[in-house]
Amino acid sequence: MEKKSIVILGATGSIGTQTLEVIRNLDDFYIGGIVFGKNINLARALIKEYKIENYFSPFFPNYKFSSLDEFLEKTKPDIVVSAIPGFDGMIATLKSIKYTKRLALATKESLVCAGPFVKKECKNYNTELIPIDSEHSAIFQLYDNFVEKIIITASGGAVRDKKISKLEKLSPKDILKHPVWNMGKRITVDSSTMVNKAFEVIEAYELFGTKNIDVYIHPTGTVHGAVLLKDGTIKIHFGYPDMKIPIAYSLTHPERKYSNPNWPKFDNKNFIFQEVDKEKYPAFFYGKSIMENLAKRIAFNAADEIAVERFLKDEIKFTKISEIIIETCEKIDGKVNSIEDIIEIDKLARDFASNYKV
Amino acid sequence: MEKKSIVILGATGSIGTQTLEVIRNLDDFYIGGIVFGKNINLARALIKEYKIENYFSPFFPNYKFSSLDEFLEKTKPDIVVSAIPGFDGMIATLKSIKYTKRLALATKESLVCAGPFVKKECKNYNTELIPIDSEHSAIFQLYDNFVEKIIITASGGAVRDKKISKLEKLSPKDILKHPVWNMGKRITVDSSTMVNKAFEVIEAYELFGTKNIDVYIHPTGTVHGAVLLKDGTIKIHFGYPDMKIPIAYSLTHPERKYSNPNWPKFDNKNFIFQEVDKEKYPAFFYGKSIMENLAKRIAFNAADEIAVERFLKDEIKFTKISEIIIETCEKIDGKVNSIEDIIEIDKLARDFASNYKV
Repeated sequence: MEKKSIVILGATGSIGTQTLEVIRNLDDFYIGGIVFGKNINLARALIKEYKIENYFSPFFPNYKFSSLDEFLEKTKPDIVVSAIPGFDGMIATLKSIKYTKRLALATKESLVCAGPFVKKECKNYNTELIPIDSEHSAIFQLYDNFVEKIIITASGGAVRDKKISKLEKLSPKDILKHPVWNMGKRITVDSSTMVNKAFEVIEAYELFGTKNIDVYIHPTGTVHGAVLLKDGTIKIHFGYPDMKIPIAYSLTHPERKYSNPNWPKFDNKNFIFQEVDKEKYPAFFYGKSIMENLAKRIAFNAADEIAVERFLKDEIKFTKISEIIIETCEKIDGKVNSIEDIIEIDKLARDFASNYKV
Repeated sequence: MEKKSIVILGATGSIGTQTLEVIRNLDDFYIGGIVFGKNINLARALIKEYKIENYFSPFFPNYKFSSLDEFLEKTKPDIVVSAIPGFDGMIATLKSIKYTKRLALATKESLVCAGPFVKKECKNYNTELIPIDSEHSAIFQLYDNFVEKIIITASGGAVRDKKISKLEKLSPKDILKHPVWNMGKRITVDSSTMVNKAFEVIEAYELFGTKNIDVYIHPTGTVHGAVLLKDGTIKIHFGYPDMKIPIAYSLTHPERKYSNPNWPKFDNKNFIFQEVDKEKYPAFFYGKSIMENLAKRIAFNAADEIAVERFLKDEIKFTKISEIIIETCEKIDGKVNSIEDIIEIDKLARDFASNYKV
């Protein structure tokens, strides 16, 4: 069998470097190329370590490709792993679809802000869309035509066991201690507000076409998701929280070629589930309620990014993050007919959230 | 779509009557006929209630079919639900395979005592083999090519929470209280010795071709089984213990047409798992150890049936059931080349177990 080529968009990030490690342990794949941003030192180290021939960064345009389009057209990857954070990732995702057979997706903005556009493009170019995020990968692995409800789990972040009255006083340092996953700063804060889980509900809605999505707080992160089937059966996806597993699955689906015989025990502690507290996580419930409104979803993402920045700069209290997000979304609405509309709504929301007086 | 016809072998038993109920709730199926034993009163009531045109009992040969073969040949069912207990069920199962497209199997003897013969016959006649037992149905629903280990659960029966020192004194009445399922007498005793779980391990070995099978005691009976996949993923089958669900699945597979939107909660109490105690359940471990030896499997089944009868007649103590089974199996070995061999070994084992002095 011919080896499949993989292009990684966002190779120097957490998903990017883990994807490189995974590919090293799979026989049937090779690195067709990488795209990175400003982290040229790490990029150089990876290019050397993995003997990568094709690479591109819009910030260092001094190599054989003058644009992302040219890079993608020449590398013609079998699979694109899309893992550039933020709006750049969304644009890169949309560009990449026509050049590849499979889009393995790890950027939330692509589905939260541009879900219908990504799906349309995938349909137009007959490109498979496979989620990488552990919860969505879990549901994707369990999904069939008889699903009536989806369940995904949440860690509850650093505030899970804190009293609501104490939330106001939490510093960025307190919040950046995540109980399960070791991730970037914004997503760690998003995990504490459960805004990240609202994003995931929105993504699940786009991926699986159902609004019937429940979320449980689940401390150990060992159950990633479940599907409730028409006949009373529930299928649960259980395993250690290790992103290399869903990354590998996104590449090898429908097969499993990644060898990792390392299963968690059937220990009662791995099966604790709690309802999400409405008072503690107001932005989560708000985000879930606007699932079907694309303009508000764009505002939700933009306002969250600004609010988290303001919190990390100690400009606002932790509890104000949710307030800024909700107030911003309440102000914004409208039709989203194009990428330009997305960019415009995003800008409006960012301006509003930046200037929101707390 | 043309409706599919179902013949039930063992219509008056628990699986049989539940199958009739299930079919009434499915649009695409009809009862092609039923086979029953001595319970003519219930059979008459069912024939009337479900307006069944074709029926046969070897004990009442006064109707339009003179033999099971003739009945099967004339009814030509799309699906045979095989649920006659004991050796008669095994013989009926083997006979039915050539007349149908799908064998939905609920008799343990068929696989425990004649697994290789049943599988060979299914291969010869291109007949699908689908398990009905809740644990095997669960694994069947989760199985793929990347399974490295199977887990099935056990209730632990009426003795689960009893001290080993107290087992000797348990009466048939004590043992016949099963914590999860309401079943016949023999299977309820088999559940307390976990001999039934040894049968299920043997059946899983025949169905899925792996010896990597672990069993956990699981009090609520809500997790029926799980598969451990090559990449570290575990898929768990969770749902209320209700035989109508796996019965319906065996008919509608690969689809789910049975509507039963009734799912257990993600409650920590539904996820308790314990190791099986070697001292408390010696016959279980013995049965698991002879998985690959067909002659000893036949002896294991025969000796258990005799030992359980002797226990229910108050002839022997509860703890002697295991002793009789193990001692009988230790005496018996040999090649099994034919159904005649099965019948001979079965008889030898029964004689030995009946005469075993305790």
